[in-house]
Amino acid sequence: MKELKKLLDEKEVKPTFQRLSILKYLEENREHPTADMIYEYIREKVPTISKTTVYNTVHKFLEKGLIKELTITGQEARYDFVTDSHHHFLCEKCGTIYDIDINCPHGLPGQNMVRGHKVEEIHGYFKGICKNCLQKN
Amino acid sequence: MKELKKLLDEKEVKPTFQRLSILKYLEENREHPTADMIYEYIREKVPTISKTTVYNTVHKFLEKGLIKELTITGQEARYDFVTDSHHHFLCEKCGTIYDIDINCPHGLPGQNMVRGHKVEEIHGYFKGICKNCLQKN
Repeated sequence: MKELKKLLDEKEVKPTFQRLSILKYLEENREHPTADMIYEYIREKVPTISKTTVYNTVHKFLEKGLIKELTITGQEARYDFVTDSHHHFLCEKCGTIYDIDINCPHGLPGQNMVRGHKVEEIHGYFKGICKNCLQKN
Repeated sequence: MKELKKLLDEKEVKPTFQRLSILKYLEENREHPTADMIYEYIREKVPTISKTTVYNTVHKFLEKGLIKELTITGQEARYDFVTDSHHHFLCEKCGTIYDIDINCPHGLPGQNMVRGHKVEEIHGYFKGICKNCLQKN
């Protein structure tokens, strides 16, 4: 929790108990949850929390670059604790989103221009059938 | 129109006038429109068309692989006529979505596995400030 408090302090986000609980959940659960999934989990620990608080907190974290928003499913936003740059694989059979630890040559440090545009974020979305579903066939 | 009719025939989609009009629009306008933008344009040419028909047609084209769905904005789906593999850049200032003609080494022909998962689609989404907006500053 101490590390997370420091992270919030650095981004000038007041480290309330609710915010710390949400950030801790996102750090520990790398399953790319939706805001609703975060709410369902958090309200068991913090029963007084409202859905609006969870949504507002998620947007504050996004704005401050503490988490990333994934739009890979095309259905709803998923959230990811920010670590090193990595990409995502969505299994179209079971719906699992996997982290993919490959690098895009255009996303290497120091390389932040592409065709004259200034790049601030890169999201690599791979879709197909995951290794678990392949084995089941 | 003849080429587009052939494309629909190949995918076993009955080439009605409405479907051909929508596909023609998507082929000629590579601005990654939303379904609503397609509807607004098409109803000027085909005033009897309903929004539902446009939505159903777009989903039929998607299912048949004639177009791709982009979720880059996180707000709404955008549609793209399928050509060679390319990636997309979203300007966070003006909202324009640009085609980016770079290749991902993991998306080259014959390379369809990543970390044990079978890859069927790759979407590279770059976000930042586009060259036009950079010049305006």
